[in-house]
Amino acid sequence: MNKKIALMPGDGVGPEIVKQGIKILDAVSAKYNCVFEYKELLMGGIAIEKTGHPLPQETINACKESDAVLLGAVGGWKWDNLPGHLRPEAGLLGIRKALGVFANLRPAILFPQLKSASFLREGVLEDGIDVMIIRELIGGIYFGEKKRVDIEGGQKAWDVMAYSTHEIERITRRAYETARKRSKKLTMVDKANVLESSRLWREVVMGISGEYPDVETNYMYVDNAAMQLIRNPKQFDVIVTENMFGDILSDEASMLTGSLGMLPSASMGEGKIGLYEPIHGSAPDIAGQDKANPIATIMSIAMMLRYSLDMEAAASDIERAVSKVLDKGYRTADIMQEGMDLVGTERMGDLIAENI
Amino acid sequence: MNKKIALMPGDGVGPEIVKQGIKILDAVSAKYNCVFEYKELLMGGIAIEKTGHPLPQETINACKESDAVLLGAVGGWKWDNLPGHLRPEAGLLGIRKALGVFANLRPAILFPQLKSASFLREGVLEDGIDVMIIRELIGGIYFGEKKRVDIEGGQKAWDVMAYSTHEIERITRRAYETARKRSKKLTMVDKANVLESSRLWREVVMGISGEYPDVETNYMYVDNAAMQLIRNPKQFDVIVTENMFGDILSDEASMLTGSLGMLPSASMGEGKIGLYEPIHGSAPDIAGQDKANPIATIMSIAMMLRYSLDMEAAASDIERAVSKVLDKGYRTADIMQEGMDLVGTERMGDLIAENI
Ligand SMILES: CC(C)[C@H](C(=O)O)[C@@H](O)C(=O)O
Ligand SMILES: CC(C)[C@H](C(=O)O)[C@@H](O)C(=O)O
Repeated sequence: MNKKIALMPGDGVGPEIVKQGIKILDAVSAKYNCVFEYKELLMGGIAIEKTGHPLPQETINACKESDAVLLGAVGGWKWDNLPGHLRPEAGLLGIRKALGVFANLRPAILFPQLKSASFLREGVLEDGIDVMIIRELIGGIYFGEKKRVDIEGGQKAWDVMAYSTHEIERITRRAYETARKRSKKLTMVDKANVLESSRLWREVVMGISGEYPDVETNYMYVDNAAMQLIRNPKQFDVIVTENMFGDILSDEASMLTGSLGMLPSASMGEGKIGLYEPIHGSAPDIAGQDKANPIATIMSIAMMLRYSLDMEAAASDIERAVSKVLDKGYRTADIMQEGMDLVGTERMGDLIAENI
Repeated sequence: MNKKIALMPGDGVGPEIVKQGIKILDAVSAKYNCVFEYKELLMGGIAIEKTGHPLPQETINACKESDAVLLGAVGGWKWDNLPGHLRPEAGLLGIRKALGVFANLRPAILFPQLKSASFLREGVLEDGIDVMIIRELIGGIYFGEKKRVDIEGGQKAWDVMAYSTHEIERITRRAYETARKRSKKLTMVDKANVLESSRLWREVVMGISGEYPDVETNYMYVDNAAMQLIRNPKQFDVIVTENMFGDILSDEASMLTGSLGMLPSASMGEGKIGLYEPIHGSAPDIAGQDKANPIATIMSIAMMLRYSLDMEAAASDIERAVSKVLDKGYRTADIMQEGMDLVGTERMGDLIAENI
């Protein structure tokens, strides 16, 4: 079995964490006797440096021909003053759109070994946190019309948040299917008391909810959701929401686990191909110092094996290996605790690979 | 000295908490020998019931003729299926707009007596939390064009997030003036890596920052801010942001203090008139049961005295009275802790009034 994997290391700590990801894929390849063909591609700030554009056409083409795409991270201070369409982030948004990956799955899991790293007080956590945030990824205000015009006394700028029935339907079905395989509880987050697009979301979700009578559906305003995630995260199983709200809430949720450096994400469309990336950013301040935590990337590879490559056993191997290495007391700097063994990016990658 | 105060008790627990607010104003009136003329007005769900519209013209007129406006809370399940412009929330948005109160000040303060009620773990809190979130209140996606059209296979709905230089300038200046009176640190929150309106915000704030060399200015993306509020809230002093981001972040921040029922808000425009309201909602599930915590409303009155009525001494009296009553161990149900004295809405109002 040959599988084509596109790699976009990107900027900042991206290259060093993607390197650890390849170690893991190599270990899986040896164990399961399969071949992964890697193709390294330019995207983000590095693509701007080398080609003048954050997302070269060649990158898009190669990604489309792959079975799965692994992304490190993009962005950094030095590109902060470029116009919107030439920033590293435009590359990220562009590849999401080009691949049609409308469903961004962001699990917020508390690793039991890291319980004391959570920023929440003990009582709130009880026996852990396991929330799956499903964020619509290629619609809404990220991709709506943007404009700037001169007016008397200055300028006026706007962004349009738009959604169609079709866009809402496909992500809603994906969310229900996911909830069905979990605790059968779906919370839809919107701002239907103010936004027309949220009201359409709510109508569409209400309509589809009838097809999933085994799943309990709840509706919550985004401001309340931002509170409830802190107050009582255990009430959530799957959360489905539009692009911008998902961006904010999933980052907030990552803090509950205290493990930003551990959390993966998968972005899926209609087919099997998926885009996998850690949820943390490019962290230019620690780039190239062997300090970054590669676990988020490695857990993203577990998601890749599960969702795009139909290798569930290998996915579980990776998750078990991460758990074992944590049990043995190895920690990168971001999750370091007293009495544990501090290791760098490379060594953490090696340890997990050895345990596959 | 006669001061005209418009009262909009609104829905749910609104009437019972506003009643406690009046007790406090009466105590202030007695102590400082001034006269408050109250005028009760319809707004929200109750206005829909009685007049068919969430914001009768009479309410607008009377508010405009007042020195300050006190609002309880609006909204409830029974109005959830009305079209947008006839919902209770439309009344709230309408009165904000009519009064031109563009700056919504939402302090997130940790009451030392309630430290253990915070949802954050001890280490994060250190010696407390005191963040002032300044939310733009009458622009952005709340007030932009909204539309719904039929398209093939369904509908399309949209909302427009728009900002002009002028709208950003006035709130930015207000934020800098506020930061100057506090710890001289301003964090501007946006999504400038994606939104054009955020990029205009950033340019305007950068331009104005030069006028306030004594204030340190920081820029942060909203997803990161949602994380940083949990990870390290002590880094913030004043946060300034657009309407929707402010809605989400201020509710999130309230949880850090563990005291949603304690937190006030003030909405100010160019003049002295302000709109004062607790940040919590109408809580229809406990309405009329003498369970609601009136402290958020009472603290809002302290803000009213300070910002609209030039009665700083009376404002401090109220804050001291609240602190004293907490010190004595009185608690409403939402902030109840072991060994404390559980009291209802009315009794809490009486206790604070007695201590003015
Ligand atoms: C870098 C940025 C454009 C991106 C987003 O907002 O989608 C990031 O925050 C994320 O969540 O993947
Ligand atoms: C009720 C709702 C329209 C309102 C808002 O979003 O502004 C509320 O959440 C608030 O923050 O005051």
